[in-house]
Amino acid sequence: MTAFQELVAFQRETEALASIAERLGWDQETVMPRGAAEQRAEETAALESVLHARRTDPRIEDWLARAEAETPFEARFLDLAGRSYNRNTRVPARLATELARLTSLSQGIWAEARAEENPAAFVPVLKQVLALKREEAECLAEGDLYDALLDDYEPGATHRSLGAMFDRMRPRLVALRERVLGAEFRPPVLDQVFPEAAQLRLARICASAFGYDWSCGRLDIAVHPFSSGSGRDVRITTRVVESDPFNCLYSTIHETGHACYELGIDEEYAFTPMGHGVSMGVHESQSRIFENQIGRSAAFTGWLYQRMTEAFGDFGIRTPEAFHACVNRVTPGFIRTEADELHYNLHIMMRFDLERELIAGRLAVDDLEEAWNARFEQDFGVAVPTPSQGFLQDVHWAVGLFGYFPTYALGNVYAGCLHQTLRAALPDLDASLAGGSARPATEWLRESLHRHGGLRPPVETIEAACGFAPTEGPLLDYLEAKFGAIYGL
Amino acid sequence: MTAFQELVAFQRETEALASIAERLGWDQETVMPRGAAEQRAEETAALESVLHARRTDPRIEDWLARAEAETPFEARFLDLAGRSYNRNTRVPARLATELARLTSLSQGIWAEARAEENPAAFVPVLKQVLALKREEAECLAEGDLYDALLDDYEPGATHRSLGAMFDRMRPRLVALRERVLGAEFRPPVLDQVFPEAAQLRLARICASAFGYDWSCGRLDIAVHPFSSGSGRDVRITTRVVESDPFNCLYSTIHETGHACYELGIDEEYAFTPMGHGVSMGVHESQSRIFENQIGRSAAFTGWLYQRMTEAFGDFGIRTPEAFHACVNRVTPGFIRTEADELHYNLHIMMRFDLERELIAGRLAVDDLEEAWNARFEQDFGVAVPTPSQGFLQDVHWAVGLFGYFPTYALGNVYAGCLHQTLRAALPDLDASLAGGSARPATEWLRESLHRHGGLRPPVETIEAACGFAPTEGPLLDYLEAKFGAIYGL
Repeated sequence: MTAFQELVAFQRETEALASIAERLGWDQETVMPRGAAEQRAEETAALESVLHARRTDPRIEDWLARAEAETPFEARFLDLAGRSYNRNTRVPARLATELARLTSLSQGIWAEARAEENPAAFVPVLKQVLALKREEAECLAEGDLYDALLDDYEPGATHRSLGAMFDRMRPRLVALRERVLGAEFRPPVLDQVFPEAAQLRLARICASAFGYDWSCGRLDIAVHPFSSGSGRDVRITTRVVESDPFNCLYSTIHETGHACYELGIDEEYAFTPMGHGVSMGVHESQSRIFENQIGRSAAFTGWLYQRMTEAFGDFGIRTPEAFHACVNRVTPGFIRTEADELHYNLHIMMRFDLERELIAGRLAVDDLEEAWNARFEQDFGVAVPTPSQGFLQDVHWAVGLFGYFPTYALGNVYAGCLHQTLRAALPDLDASLAGGSARPATEWLRESLHRHGGLRPPVETIEAACGFAPTEGPLLDYLEAKFGAIYGL
Repeated sequence: MTAFQELVAFQRETEALASIAERLGWDQETVMPRGAAEQRAEETAALESVLHARRTDPRIEDWLARAEAETPFEARFLDLAGRSYNRNTRVPARLATELARLTSLSQGIWAEARAEENPAAFVPVLKQVLALKREEAECLAEGDLYDALLDDYEPGATHRSLGAMFDRMRPRLVALRERVLGAEFRPPVLDQVFPEAAQLRLARICASAFGYDWSCGRLDIAVHPFSSGSGRDVRITTRVVESDPFNCLYSTIHETGHACYELGIDEEYAFTPMGHGVSMGVHESQSRIFENQIGRSAAFTGWLYQRMTEAFGDFGIRTPEAFHACVNRVTPGFIRTEADELHYNLHIMMRFDLERELIAGRLAVDDLEEAWNARFEQDFGVAVPTPSQGFLQDVHWAVGLFGYFPTYALGNVYAGCLHQTLRAALPDLDASLAGGSARPATEWLRESLHRHGGLRPPVETIEAACGFAPTEGPLLDYLEAKFGAIYGL
């Protein structure tokens, strides 16, 4: 075997083991008995230890030095394998172990502090997490510390380029928000109970409408919806709130977007570094375009309105137009995950600015709550009432995910670009959506983007699908047109 | 660290990885999407390869040579670790891989041959499996080839001692069978539909009646019911046939027996070789005593009759006595897994004799069907009508499980011994069973047997719980008394 072939064979087994780790995670969040938590922690740690040893195996360095790429596929393989090896060998085992231990502990502390509205219980452990993540960033950084962390989620992105883009987006978003909130029109709201079983039946219908392949997946309930897996086993989850069926339905459509990306990757990339979505931002673009640009379009909600009526009878909304406005209701709120399309990016920008200050050491954890509250009032015009509606709302920082937040907004921007191109390529899409099928959109995305998996870096992946370099323009145009129409601006 | 401590730490991680492999198996048989099968095979193979490397790691030999046991626990640890190391290093990697590949293939060939009643499609692959198993036995054997294979499932058992015991059992079983089948009394049979959802609700009630700990387990549907896992995550499965609720209920109770054994093992043995049931025979004794001696007792079926009436209304059985007879109906049949308590062991004895001949090379695979059919007619008095009701009915030989069958009958024998002692220790058990609780029995078994896990070899495990060396007498006495009463002999 050549050095390249040896590397591929070794990597293949590592990918298979990593896939098992992901399956264990799914099990833990969906079907695992609660009494098994401690045992599972030990099992997961054993597998992670095997994975870490493989990812830092010194033979990789040797194979990388001797392997020669003869195709773009091989070149990208070596590039990604080299990145992974560097990432894993630069962080000392002691630090990696300490981070794993601390962040599994801090998650519980965060959850309790949030439930009890007790920031003081969370601040000490967040200080420790931040200190370790800064230490990790110092091991990884070739320049800026924050960029080193960001690179884990969005390779190639920098805080400078993201910051500049967010600065361009903010004025148009704020202006649109002011006009919408000042409008006379008020969309209707739901005010009855929607039984769980019927919600789940409809969620399955929605996933099918987007072409989710049930022979390679399944739908279960989880506290925080997620999708899980790659290749031919990509499972989705949702949750049910009986007063709010949109939570279940749009969580399902969102996760279906993530799942269709993974399921759409060419089989030849299975068990290679290209066999997964290329970045968090590109992944989020697939979930967001399903959920928002397609799933909240007038054509799709027109179809969904009929299905809701069949499932729940008269639920108080009189027309498809009123239902479309209800689904797209803009309302200021404190919680990111409940935010409408318009407010969502403002939540992200705020977290992005705060976490850069934390990593740079310009903001102390002791001052974080005050900084959050001041910034929230400035951006959203209302005062944060409780810590759980403020800086304690998200788990990310508790588990060390600094640099993750901006990829959500980047996903929205990418979705805007892809949607513009997709609509031009599929002029009859609305007719199909009105008939309950988003499959033409899924197929277009598969051909244009999904199938290539991690073959190209994130920006190139979007550019190859769109035919232009991604910018925030299409997203903002879409938002202004959509909410202008709904609110009669 | 001492050599012993190093071995324990290494073994702990291996056990955790093996536990993951078992969880993957559960996933595959219950919730995995069917399209994921090929991918899962590669994932499982990767994990097995890691496990094999660890189980044959040369450091184990060094630790074993240097470690000194200071307690019985430590001595047993070294004994079991040494057995496992020898077992795994004696079989060359080439042979182990070839066996894994062939038996995963042959399972599908067997299933197809059985479905199509086509022995000729199965015979060639069974020849290959048998040849490899004989080769494996030659690597392992210190004496008899069959005993070397038997040792994997029932350490310490030999074909001589089992054969002698079966020879003692056969005449009494045959005589009892003749008297029962010649009796005038005919138990009633069920002849209506029992809806799936109600069967599953009642199955959960039955598992609870035996004290199954739902915080450390769950019940799902599988094609072939099994229990899975050790420690604090032991899951059970059942199946549903709407015309035959006993299939679902008694499969559940059977698997609850296996699960309570694993769940009852002292926590200090977790992630050690003692942290599992000690042998297949002892394991089967726990499932059988739950299913038969307790679950099919008049006291328990009296309670179950009321629950069945609540769940299904009038189902055609008029009295608790008639229901008890119905549950215990003796009927000659071709299928082992559907056999009553009386016929079951006769099925096993026949397989035991045939598989010893196969391994010894005295019976050729080409002649197996004829030998099976001749022996069946001799033992059961009826001719086998089709291959699927004959030598194609069980998967065991197809996947190389030679030496496994006798542990089923051994489990029945052990259950007979344990039941005799348990009844003497718990004179009020029937009152508890009549009230729907088998928990006193479960607790007695936990204290007497479960908690010790693999601390003592199989026979010593039973002897410690019973206070006498296990023999077939108590089982035969129990069968004669029970069926004598039901059939008015």
